[in-house]
Amino acid sequence: MDYFKESLKLHAEHKGKMEIKSKFPLRNFEDLSVAYTPGVAEPCRKIADDVNDAYKYTTKANTVAVVTDGSAVLGLGNIGATAALPVMEGKCLLFKKFAGVDAVPICIETQDPDEIIDIVKNISPAYGGINLEDIKAPQCFYIEKKLKEILKIPVFHDDQHGTAIVCLAGLINAFKLTGRDFKTSKIVIAGAGAAGIAIAKILIIRGVKNIILLDSKGVIGRSRKDLQFMKKEMAEITNPGNIVGGLKEAMVSADVFIGVSKPKIVSSAMVKSMNDDAIVFALSNPVPEIDPEMAKKAGAAIVATGRSDYPNQINNVLAFPGIFKGALKLRNKQITDKMKVNAAVALAESVKNPSAAKIIPGVFDKGVAEIVARVVVRS
Amino acid sequence: MDYFKESLKLHAEHKGKMEIKSKFPLRNFEDLSVAYTPGVAEPCRKIADDVNDAYKYTTKANTVAVVTDGSAVLGLGNIGATAALPVMEGKCLLFKKFAGVDAVPICIETQDPDEIIDIVKNISPAYGGINLEDIKAPQCFYIEKKLKEILKIPVFHDDQHGTAIVCLAGLINAFKLTGRDFKTSKIVIAGAGAAGIAIAKILIIRGVKNIILLDSKGVIGRSRKDLQFMKKEMAEITNPGNIVGGLKEAMVSADVFIGVSKPKIVSSAMVKSMNDDAIVFALSNPVPEIDPEMAKKAGAAIVATGRSDYPNQINNVLAFPGIFKGALKLRNKQITDKMKVNAAVALAESVKNPSAAKIIPGVFDKGVAEIVARVVVRS
Repeated sequence: MDYFKESLKLHAEHKGKMEIKSKFPLRNFEDLSVAYTPGVAEPCRKIADDVNDAYKYTTKANTVAVVTDGSAVLGLGNIGATAALPVMEGKCLLFKKFAGVDAVPICIETQDPDEIIDIVKNISPAYGGINLEDIKAPQCFYIEKKLKEILKIPVFHDDQHGTAIVCLAGLINAFKLTGRDFKTSKIVIAGAGAAGIAIAKILIIRGVKNIILLDSKGVIGRSRKDLQFMKKEMAEITNPGNIVGGLKEAMVSADVFIGVSKPKIVSSAMVKSMNDDAIVFALSNPVPEIDPEMAKKAGAAIVATGRSDYPNQINNVLAFPGIFKGALKLRNKQITDKMKVNAAVALAESVKNPSAAKIIPGVFDKGVAEIVARVVVRS
Repeated sequence: MDYFKESLKLHAEHKGKMEIKSKFPLRNFEDLSVAYTPGVAEPCRKIADDVNDAYKYTTKANTVAVVTDGSAVLGLGNIGATAALPVMEGKCLLFKKFAGVDAVPICIETQDPDEIIDIVKNISPAYGGINLEDIKAPQCFYIEKKLKEILKIPVFHDDQHGTAIVCLAGLINAFKLTGRDFKTSKIVIAGAGAAGIAIAKILIIRGVKNIILLDSKGVIGRSRKDLQFMKKEMAEITNPGNIVGGLKEAMVSADVFIGVSKPKIVSSAMVKSMNDDAIVFALSNPVPEIDPEMAKKAGAAIVATGRSDYPNQINNVLAFPGIFKGALKLRNKQITDKMKVNAAVALAESVKNPSAAKIIPGVFDKGVAEIVARVVVRS
C-alpha cells in the first residue's frame, strides 16, 4: 500500500480525522436548560468557588492539549503550525484509542519560546495536561522546564520522554536476556536532539555510568567548544573517558547502540567492533541507522527499530497514553523521573516471556496504557 | 424540574459534556500508517506548500474556537476562565447540534485585551473561525475589531451579533404585523453592553433614525460626560433629539422597547406611555425586564423574551450556528454587516405566516442554520 497516497485520500475524504461528540443529546428545551442556560450556571458557580471542581464538572478532567509550534515535525523539519495539524490530529486519535483520553491540537504560530510558554500558560484552564509535541531542540527543553515550574497541571514533552521510557523498557529486557548490568555497560547514543538527550538522562537515572552521546559533529565531550546549553550540560554528565572522534570511534567495545538520528549511518564493521551479544536500537524512521538483518549478521544479539514491520518496535504510543491517563488522575502533580522509570520497568515486566524478538509489548497489546497509568498514579 | 440541581448532577456524571471522536478506526498497523506515520507526512507536505490546503486535509475546515476570558459569563459576571468552561462546552454542543460544526473551548486566563488578541492570533492555525464569547464590554469591542483586522479567518462576537441578528429578525416581522417602518420608528434599548450596542448598530444599518440607548445611569447622549469610547461613539449616532433622563422619559411615544439589561425595570405605566400597538422585547434572562403578560395588558401588541416557555424566544442559537456554517465555507473572509442583516431578513422570511405569537423561528425548527448559512455564503 502507498501510505502517502492513501493518507492524502483519507484526509481529503474526511477533512481531518477527528470531530466533537456530545456526551448527551439536546432533544428539547429541557435538555437545553440542563446542559446550557439556565442550569449550567450551577457548575459554573461551583468552579468559581473552588477551581478544583473543574475536575468534577468539566472536560478538564480528561482533556489533554497537544501543543506544537510546528518547528520539528516528523522527519519534515520546521514546516510551521498549520502544516503540523495532521500530525497533531493523529496524536489526538492515539490518545483516545489507547487510553480513552480526549486530546485537542493547539497549533501555535510563534516559535519564540517565551511567547509559547506564555500562550500555553494562558490557555491551560480547559486542560488537565499539556503534551508538547514536535518542538525543536534546544527550545523544547526550556519550554518544558518553564511550563513545569509555572503550571500545576502535568506537562510532558513526548518526543523526549515517551521515547526515553519505551527505550528504557526495551533495554531492561535486552539486558536481562544478555546478562548485562546498567552500571557497567557502555551505551552509545547517536542523535542529541530531544529524544537522544532524554534517553541519555533516563539511562543516567537508571544507573548507567558510561554513555557516549553524539550529535552531527561527533562525540559530545568536554573538549567541544561549539555546544549549546543542553549539550554542554550533557558533556558534563556523559563521556567519562572524555573520548573524541566520530561514531566509528565511539562504537568500539560498546554494549548498546541507540540511534535517534539519520538513516544508514551505522556500518557492519561498527557493529562488529561492539562487544559480543551487542544490542542495537536503530530507531530512525522509516529508514533505520542500520538494516536490522545487517546488524544481526554483524553480531547483534538483539535489534529494535521504530518500524512496525520488524520485531521490537520502540513506539511512543506504548508510553504517552498511559502516562497521561495516570497523570490526569493525579491532577495537580507534575510527571516525575520516578514515574517515568517506573513506567519503563512496568512496560518491561508486562512482557511475560521476553525473547530477542519480543523485548517490549506490541502497540496493539491489550491493557498497556492501564499498566502504565497505574504505575504513574502509585509512583 | 430544578435545572440547577439537574445540571450539576449531569455535569458530574459525565465530567463535562463533550468528547473527541475519531472519524475512522485505528484497528491495525495499516490504519496507523495511513492516519499517522508515515502516511500523515503527505498531507503535512501539501499544507506546507500551500497553507490553504489545511481546509482540504484537516479539521480546520469545520472547527471553530469558542474563546472566552470568563469576564462576563451569563448573569454570573467575571467568574474567570476555568469557571466559564461549562458554558463554553455547552456552546460547543449547540454548534454541533444545530449546524454540524465542531467547536472547542479556549479559556484564556489573562483579561488583558492585547494579550488576548495576541494569544488568539497565535493559536488560530487549527481553526476555521473564532467565536468570541462572554467577554465583558467595552474590551469585547476592541478585541473583536483588532482580531478582524489581524486574522484572515472569520471572527464573530456572538454576544453582540448573534443577539443583534435574531433581534432584528424578530423586529422585521413585528414591524410587518404592526405596519411600521424602520426609518420612522422610535426604538428604546435598555442596556449598553455588548448586546445593546450591537442591536443599536444593526438597527442603524437597517435604517432606523431614532434610537434611544440607555445604560445604568440613564439615556446616553452628547451631554453625558462619563462615557467610555464605545458609548461615546453611540452618543454620536443615536438620540437625535439629545434627550436626557431615565427609562421613564425615554419610553414616552416609543414604538419599540428592547431590554438587554436587568429584571423588572419596566413598569406597566411605561408601556402605556409608548405608542399604540407597542413592541416589547424583554430579553433579560431568566427574569425579563417586564412580565410578558403585564406588557400585553399594558397595551403591547407583540412581546418577545429570552425564555423558551413564552412565545417569540430571541435566542442566539438561531443565528451563530448558521453564521459559522456559512463563514467556514467562505474561509478567509470576515463576517460583514451585510451578511448579518441578510441573515436576519432570511430568518424573518423563514417564518411562513408570522403572527404576534410567532415572529421568529423556533429553536428546534428544522433547517434554520442551513437557511442562515446559505445567505451568508451568498452575501
